[in-house]
Amino acid sequence: MYGVILAGGVGTRLWPRSRASHPKQFTDITGSGWTMIQATARRLEGLAGSDQLFVVTGPSYADLVTQQLPQMPASHLLVEPSGRNTAPAVGLACLHVRRLQPDATVAILPADHVILQPDQFQAALRRAVEVAQENWIVTLGIEPTFAHSGYGYIKRREVLASAAEIPAYRVERFLEKPNRAVAEQFLSEGGYYWNGGIFVSRADRLLEELARQAPALYGCLERIDAALDSAQASQVLAEVWQEMPSISIDYAVMEGARQVAVVPLQAGWNDVGSWDALETVLEQDGAGNRIARGEVLLLDSTNNIVYSDKRLVALIHIDNLVVVDTGDTLLIGDKNNMQRVKEVVEMLRDQGRTELL
Amino acid sequence: MYGVILAGGVGTRLWPRSRASHPKQFTDITGSGWTMIQATARRLEGLAGSDQLFVVTGPSYADLVTQQLPQMPASHLLVEPSGRNTAPAVGLACLHVRRLQPDATVAILPADHVILQPDQFQAALRRAVEVAQENWIVTLGIEPTFAHSGYGYIKRREVLASAAEIPAYRVERFLEKPNRAVAEQFLSEGGYYWNGGIFVSRADRLLEELARQAPALYGCLERIDAALDSAQASQVLAEVWQEMPSISIDYAVMEGARQVAVVPLQAGWNDVGSWDALETVLEQDGAGNRIARGEVLLLDSTNNIVYSDKRLVALIHIDNLVVVDTGDTLLIGDKNNMQRVKEVVEMLRDQGRTELL
Repeated sequence: MYGVILAGGVGTRLWPRSRASHPKQFTDITGSGWTMIQATARRLEGLAGSDQLFVVTGPSYADLVTQQLPQMPASHLLVEPSGRNTAPAVGLACLHVRRLQPDATVAILPADHVILQPDQFQAALRRAVEVAQENWIVTLGIEPTFAHSGYGYIKRREVLASAAEIPAYRVERFLEKPNRAVAEQFLSEGGYYWNGGIFVSRADRLLEELARQAPALYGCLERIDAALDSAQASQVLAEVWQEMPSISIDYAVMEGARQVAVVPLQAGWNDVGSWDALETVLEQDGAGNRIARGEVLLLDSTNNIVYSDKRLVALIHIDNLVVVDTGDTLLIGDKNNMQRVKEVVEMLRDQGRTELL
Repeated sequence: MYGVILAGGVGTRLWPRSRASHPKQFTDITGSGWTMIQATARRLEGLAGSDQLFVVTGPSYADLVTQQLPQMPASHLLVEPSGRNTAPAVGLACLHVRRLQPDATVAILPADHVILQPDQFQAALRRAVEVAQENWIVTLGIEPTFAHSGYGYIKRREVLASAAEIPAYRVERFLEKPNRAVAEQFLSEGGYYWNGGIFVSRADRLLEELARQAPALYGCLERIDAALDSAQASQVLAEVWQEMPSISIDYAVMEGARQVAVVPLQAGWNDVGSWDALETVLEQDGAGNRIARGEVLLLDSTNNIVYSDKRLVALIHIDNLVVVDTGDTLLIGDKNNMQRVKEVVEMLRDQGRTELL
């Protein structure tokens, strides 16, 4: 099995810790001792060695990947000339994997997810690999814990016959982000999963689906593939990439693919999509406070999330806040309004304060 | 007239901006461009030149005084070997003033008060000097704006006959900090003032009162006085100071003095006794936010007080907080609980974190 880590995201939702020059996947956001991309690679240990690892990222982040995953072969760092959403990134990685091993299976993994139970994750991933080897495209379906309206959903059909302990189901369909009421209906009805963007498939199978469903994109990939061993490889990549359609792998492949399966994942998954999401991944003290990092002195303070770099943080009679203290910026927000970090980032962008983004 | 600025306080109530090594009087807490001791000296301009200025402080702060008031003669910096409350400090300054000019009047001024209307202050001070020259000990009585239970009060008696525009009253008595109900009674009854610790008197008159009411203290002062011109001056001061009683000028002199007057002061006085007190001395924006210093980005945030050193501060949906961001410490507190800063300071002291105090 090959692991393909998608690490091109900018991660503004965890500003100011996540920066355009240093997004969250290169950051130890949970205080685990590992950056998120390192943790993603470590979760594959025993399944895919460092020689079976690929990372797709943008030019600004190539050095960060090399620093943080030094064990990965340099040729496995795939630098997209510009962001074109996930389908071109996945396609590019599949080209490389197919060349190394024509019948290889790939696991496509976003670099910026937290998974609290790596053993559960590995078990689900192993099961997904088995199913993928029978020529299915497999998605890991996150067992929903509440009616989240910010994720796409996957509806399952019948279970696939197997002696395996972990079930796999045929996918009925992929559903766009629902409104709250619809999400609640999904949960009460049952048989729905969150789409976490984790896919497992034979590389050649994914490329076939791209050829069938996204021929323009696949045409671009073929031109890149033809030049891969030549001295012009980078130049061709740069040229072709300008014509490359920007499209997600969900839209380009998954929603219209034949034989798509879902393997349920119940492993403390979290995409840490905003600061308040740290609530579910950090340990709390007796008063509901979660200290991601730093020294914090609490006086009658409850239910706060604090992330400090070096400074001592003292809270007096504070409830339900998120405090993020970095070298040049201090963010204090109401925990229920942390999605609005985006607005702060936009305000700073409008003001031309790029050094703070 | 001579100005005597008392600058020995430690100012823990404005921690973490005010530090044991750099208390609030040496800090520009309101963003005026002047530190509080500089502002105190500037308020005397036209009444007392820099040659008529004395400062009493502790050994740790002598250099700060010299840096911040370079125009003051070096011999006017009076360094107490250790803190002995206000009466010895005032007595020491009066010795020096009396030597320079036997019939001089002194104004005793705490270094750490904010006065928003310096013209009103000067007018009251001029009036106090007139009355003091008729051999009264005069206190400036702060017109109370609410039933504060944290100050001592002064009760007035009859107005002193005079053609002056600003009245002066004989003092009926000084009252200890009242409870809230008693303070409310004072306000509804009228004729009470807050004791702000600002006094005006002939220096010899104050020394006479000390001799009469606090003979042990005065005995110490006499020994210091006798050695003042000798080579042993510092040594005598150090020795005598160990025996010096620790007592406030209110208790040692004012409460038992004959012929004490009060001149009302209505000049935006504030002793900035806690962070929330900045509310009354800083300009607010349309949403009730007060930015003492720093760059602050506000999103749906109201009624906050922010003091930042260098960092950008972004607030999302935050109400009624005090945020104080310094190089090594960040304090976030509920505005109604800022007296509890003392507890934070105590916790740090108990932990031996003296570098943060």
